[in-house]
Amino acid sequence: MADEQEQAIFEAGIKLGALYHQFVGTPVSPVTASSLEAAIEQSIGLQPYVGEIRIHLDRAAMEENMFGYSELKGTMISVNLVTRVGRACCHARMERKGDYPLMEIVDCHEEPKTADY
Amino acid sequence: MADEQEQAIFEAGIKLGALYHQFVGTPVSPVTASSLEAAIEQSIGLQPYVGEIRIHLDRAAMEENMFGYSELKGTMISVNLVTRVGRACCHARMERKGDYPLMEIVDCHEEPKTADY
Amino acid sequence: MADEQEQAIFEAGIKLGALYHQFVGTPVSPVTASSLEAAIEQSIGLQPYVGEIRIHLDRAAMEENMFGYSELKGTMISVNLVTRVGRACCHARMERKGDYPLMEIVDCHEEPKTADY
Amino acid sequence: MADEQEQAIFEAGIKLGALYHQFVGTPVSPVTASSLEAAIEQSIGLQPYVGEIRIHLDRAAMEENMFGYSELKGTMISVNLVTRVGRACCHARMERKGDYPLMEIVDCHEEPKTADY
Repeated sequence: MADEQEQAIFEAGIKLGALYHQFVGTPVSPVTASSLEAAIEQSIGLQPYVGEIRIHLDRAAMEENMFGYSELKGTMISVNLVTRVGRACCHARMERKGDYPLMEIVDCHEEPKTADY
Repeated sequence: MADEQEQAIFEAGIKLGALYHQFVGTPVSPVTASSLEAAIEQSIGLQPYVGEIRIHLDRAAMEENMFGYSELKGTMISVNLVTRVGRACCHARMERKGDYPLMEIVDCHEEPKTADY
Repeated sequence: MADEQEQAIFEAGIKLGALYHQFVGTPVSPVTASSLEAAIEQSIGLQPYVGEIRIHLDRAAMEENMFGYSELKGTMISVNLVTRVGRACCHARMERKGDYPLMEIVDCHEEPKTADY
Repeated sequence: MADEQEQAIFEAGIKLGALYHQFVGTPVSPVTASSLEAAIEQSIGLQPYVGEIRIHLDRAAMEENMFGYSELKGTMISVNLVTRVGRACCHARMERKGDYPLMEIVDCHEEPKTADY
């Protein structure tokens, strides 16, 4: 089971790195934030081993530039993500920590074996 | 008016280059394509001088990899875009031409002056 | 010739939008800045109609995060770019203007016809 | 020590996901490939916990489009990466597997404790 857990952790890291560098720089505002959240969740949700993914973009951090919009920065993005490989699960997240968008493993566990009568 | 028209053309180019390189590589499938279309339209629609923008992603070109999804390629993207600077308008598009995602100016014109009685 | 000039302007816009959204978010520091400048110049230099391109990244703006590096932001990037379509040339640039990375047409001209004796 | 190993694995995943989605779509050719390799190695090398990183881009896969260049695709990229968290090391790689750019853990180990006399 160790190998499945390691892979669940590895896959969680991949997804966080991927979404960060795919979407940072996208023009965004409080009005368009929900469509961007949906697109990020759905696109990363296609990648292998993603169980659940929830994205929240911090509207309050979207300061308007001279043309009235903002750009997606890492520190605006909160992610909660669960990857599953076999029965191993990894819950990871990204969250602003001071000025850094920190990616962390929240917890790993093994799903209970379903009884098959 | 020449200057406004030139700027409308320049701005149209910026938007096409921007959306291409922001979103190429995003995981996508026929199921998630419409959320990605919406996110692209809304984000690029925030940029200065964008009048109208319509994105269509070619579902038929989304071949499944070994994990059942695809990745956004330039040749999957059709864009119709109108930029407006003062009364100058530029209609530009991106469309697959053979194997190349060609960006072109479709037409430029000046909007009629509105009578102000 | 009008058409060639319009296309030179359009192509300049494409390149500026492209490089911005391709490279924003890249980890960078004063030590690695020159390799990133070289990679941006060489990659955008491959695109059609690029005559000259010069990139400068503002080292002084690269504030260290908690892990000792920074990330490429639009306001760190200065670009001087010349596109050529036929005999039409467009010199465009991107440069920080307050908090905005402004893209502008600097000047357009027609190259003198070379005498062919 | 388990926790350090888990984090080394997680960090390796982050780096592979990050570099993929940051650089895919970049214009590239056999002539410019080495400058792009250098920029990727140096930028990802800035991220926390990266011990070693080697990038190789497959020149043979760079088919020329109608303008004589190509674009970076995931399947062109080979990466060998070692992350270090405390004494835990994770060697991970990305490599083309059929049509998929597969990311894998190659091996994890603990570095021998240095004797301190």
